[in-house]
Amino acid sequence: MNSATAKRIVLAARPNGKPTERDFRLELVPIPHPGTRELLLRTQYLSLDPYMRGRMDDLKSYASPTAIGDVMLGESVAEVIVSHHPGYSVGDIVLAHTGWQTHSLSNGEGLRKINPSDSSVTARLGVLGMPGFTAYSGMRIIGQPKSGETVVVAAASGPVGSLVGQLARRADARAVGIAGGPEKCSFVQDELCFDAAIDHRASDFMERLTEACPRGIDVYFENVGGTIWQAVSPLLNKFARVPVCGLIAQYGMSASPGPDRLPATMRDILSKSLTVRGFINYDFSELFPEFLREVGAGIRSGEIRYKEDIVDGLENAPNAFIGMLEGRNFGKLIIRIAV
Amino acid sequence: MNSATAKRIVLAARPNGKPTERDFRLELVPIPHPGTRELLLRTQYLSLDPYMRGRMDDLKSYASPTAIGDVMLGESVAEVIVSHHPGYSVGDIVLAHTGWQTHSLSNGEGLRKINPSDSSVTARLGVLGMPGFTAYSGMRIIGQPKSGETVVVAAASGPVGSLVGQLARRADARAVGIAGGPEKCSFVQDELCFDAAIDHRASDFMERLTEACPRGIDVYFENVGGTIWQAVSPLLNKFARVPVCGLIAQYGMSASPGPDRLPATMRDILSKSLTVRGFINYDFSELFPEFLREVGAGIRSGEIRYKEDIVDGLENAPNAFIGMLEGRNFGKLIIRIAV
Repeated sequence: MNSATAKRIVLAARPNGKPTERDFRLELVPIPHPGTRELLLRTQYLSLDPYMRGRMDDLKSYASPTAIGDVMLGESVAEVIVSHHPGYSVGDIVLAHTGWQTHSLSNGEGLRKINPSDSSVTARLGVLGMPGFTAYSGMRIIGQPKSGETVVVAAASGPVGSLVGQLARRADARAVGIAGGPEKCSFVQDELCFDAAIDHRASDFMERLTEACPRGIDVYFENVGGTIWQAVSPLLNKFARVPVCGLIAQYGMSASPGPDRLPATMRDILSKSLTVRGFINYDFSELFPEFLREVGAGIRSGEIRYKEDIVDGLENAPNAFIGMLEGRNFGKLIIRIAV
Repeated sequence: MNSATAKRIVLAARPNGKPTERDFRLELVPIPHPGTRELLLRTQYLSLDPYMRGRMDDLKSYASPTAIGDVMLGESVAEVIVSHHPGYSVGDIVLAHTGWQTHSLSNGEGLRKINPSDSSVTARLGVLGMPGFTAYSGMRIIGQPKSGETVVVAAASGPVGSLVGQLARRADARAVGIAGGPEKCSFVQDELCFDAAIDHRASDFMERLTEACPRGIDVYFENVGGTIWQAVSPLLNKFARVPVCGLIAQYGMSASPGPDRLPATMRDILSKSLTVRGFINYDFSELFPEFLREVGAGIRSGEIRYKEDIVDGLENAPNAFIGMLEGRNFGKLIIRIAV
């Protein structure tokens, strides 16, 4: 790569269901020059997260879709390599919404300086970043686990699910994780210390989940959508809470064949006085400082654990992203670009 | 009727979908004799409410189903006609869960003495009773309407819906009612002073609802279920609240044909940060004294209005109940038995 050339990945086409590599395009472009009060950032680590799948569709959501030809959105850890901004110096490390590219300009808006010595900087993209805060705020405001209750979460080895379960344990609740395959399940149970981990690929998944929840389910942290709900909903207790932060399994689904499950779900909501509440982490941004303090301390003490799946090279981002939507990653997926 | 004979209506068969008169049986039985510390009650007014339809099915719900051959459940205003209980005297008027019968025994448990001079005693079965409290507690705890917001409720001429809209107006929110037919709509708009009333039978119902909610919907008080949700959900604003207290249109539905509307609803819940929360009025019973004070004062001052549909004779209860499930009543349905 020529030193004056930047790489970026743009949305080439809207996926029809599951994305394929053809929906992305790698482009080589000149490195941009920062103007007055601008910075040039070089991306070190790029975070890949399921919500990005939603932005690839042209659907009304909590955020506008990415336009065809635009750089794929994403948060990253970046280094300031040129600064015309009084607030930043060359060598500063920041959290930034750079998107899927090696270089980007910023006027400083939305940047957050981080201290690389605090903890691993990559944690700020995962357990101590947006995914972790999704877990933390959803549990604090909606889930509210109490001692002796049972909390169930899917994608339990991922950055949201792993913290949901660990927060449940800190609240003296029973943590039951759902994950894909024996390796992830062992990690969830042995390393993250969940009370149980269930493989959703097992043919007797439903029986195992029922066994793992002898007192029913009080909090189901919905971060995947799809068929897990079918197994979970009969086990929900009166007054159970269902924070809804992601529906990875539903992305790209268009019309769904019957039967219509909505009437039965509404009946459950009524007859069990359920709370089903959607949220996006910045709905609760006032909690962010508390989150950083509490979860940061847990990470430093080793009490809160997490796993990262780091893939090298921006050009590998599309393939890694597609794999994540299929559950092929193991831990928080991060692309290492230039460190 | 022999003076020593009581009448009661029992569940003869579980309805298959809509109940028919054959699902009920009128029985003549001897008037029972109260034992030690027991009372004999004579029912004056019996309340008929949609939730009773749920109890006729053999489904797990917030309450056990009525057994075949058992007296239909229901709340009533009753007079103490024999008392062997030190807390009650002959002539006392009480709220009681007597069920659908002219006479019943009680040990005093669950009875609430009422002062007939306070307001119409029948209001204690409707706007100032369980249905009114459902509206009040659902709005206080879940709906939380704010000034300038829009609140939509169906069955708006009924005891729950009429109070939901009037409470919305008291919170300086826009109240939009949905009702069946022009007569009910006029009542909702002209007498209950909702900002708008829409006839759900109109062919352009959806357009009219959209017009009536120019700033979208912030609270949808779900007391009917069924197809209204389809019209409401696209209009829901970010952070809208959906208290779910009844699904009259769904009772007796078994398998529902596709398409499956659950994925789209979950997507709405996520993308708009919705709160969908089921409740049954006694979940919030700590608010009951406040409710009686506030809504009682509103009724006395004439600020809160309501309509009753009073049908004479216990033997007419099944037909009236079936009619209510089809929307044929106009106002709170009450059976007058012996006054």
